[in-house]
Amino acid sequence: MVETKKISKRQLILDEAAKLFKDRGYGGTSMRDLAGQVGMEAASMYNHIKAKDEILASICFRISDLYISQLGEISATNTSYGDKIKALIRLHIRLMVEDGPAVSVANHDWKYLPEPKLGEFKQARKTYEKGFAALIEAGIAAGEFQPVNVSVALFTILSAVRWIELWYRPGRDLSAEELEANIITVLLHGLERK
Amino acid sequence: MVETKKISKRQLILDEAAKLFKDRGYGGTSMRDLAGQVGMEAASMYNHIKAKDEILASICFRISDLYISQLGEISATNTSYGDKIKALIRLHIRLMVEDGPAVSVANHDWKYLPEPKLGEFKQARKTYEKGFAALIEAGIAAGEFQPVNVSVALFTILSAVRWIELWYRPGRDLSAEELEANIITVLLHGLERK
Repeated sequence: MVETKKISKRQLILDEAAKLFKDRGYGGTSMRDLAGQVGMEAASMYNHIKAKDEILASICFRISDLYISQLGEISATNTSYGDKIKALIRLHIRLMVEDGPAVSVANHDWKYLPEPKLGEFKQARKTYEKGFAALIEAGIAAGEFQPVNVSVALFTILSAVRWIELWYRPGRDLSAEELEANIITVLLHGLERK
Repeated sequence: MVETKKISKRQLILDEAAKLFKDRGYGGTSMRDLAGQVGMEAASMYNHIKAKDEILASICFRISDLYISQLGEISATNTSYGDKIKALIRLHIRLMVEDGPAVSVANHDWKYLPEPKLGEFKQARKTYEKGFAALIEAGIAAGEFQPVNVSVALFTILSAVRWIELWYRPGRDLSAEELEANIITVLLHGLERK
């Protein structure tokens, strides 16, 4: 019971930290700011979390673990390669819409991780990119996809889903579902009519 | 004769400044660093250029003027909308490959422009995006493009060409021409075979 409460308090601190890091930058956020935001004394917050870089690591690795485990599940499904790539595009968009601040921190502030965490995070990102690239490659080999350069296809897809953060505001003119459908149309089927 | 020499010296200073801003950041580059890089005394550099923000503005507006004038030329050509979009994608890639540091400064460091230059630059960017969007919209109206959301198509294309800076190194595995052809395939024709 006590343990559960401690874990959820910790999660609350991590969630508020992600919002502050996103709004003020990692360097611009102090542990004191964070305690104020969470409504705790700095001293009692240290019962839950020891240091700012521990918070950063928790946020970054929660997101990278999520991407990697979802990639594993999607790769293992018995569907076409097109459907797997579509599922990954939807995953990126849903995470951005539902877990925006943490995704933003994992995208931008990972570079402030201290070693060896920094190296581990870069490795995790590489693992994800390689797994994503392998699906594109397999789709080309299966004759499902056009014989494009795999890196160009990979980074075109990743840049499209990453840039959403900068221009998309949920619910204004376009729902998350419409956003997904339109990005999938452009990337999988192309802008030109056949 | 003297005037020509002054202009080209000025251009040399601007080119070296773009490289320094890209490598060390705008804030991390001093006029003294720049004078050292160009091989001039700081005092004599001030004959050509008065302040760091004047340099930044010259770089940013040279790039935005170039994009806007090229967009005008491409829009006016008697070709299909698909060919116009392809020409714009090629323009982005060529500028990035041939004029990389200045493009990078215009993409990232414009936010350090002082007002009213900052507002003017944002306006120029909006003008460009609107013109690009108008071509997509006209292509949809003409039945040449799929009936996608114009903002999604616009930002998917712009993010793809902007992210190239982060992952592409000219000449390694992929020439600039191959890069152009592959990005055009993904964005205009789609990853999936029809």
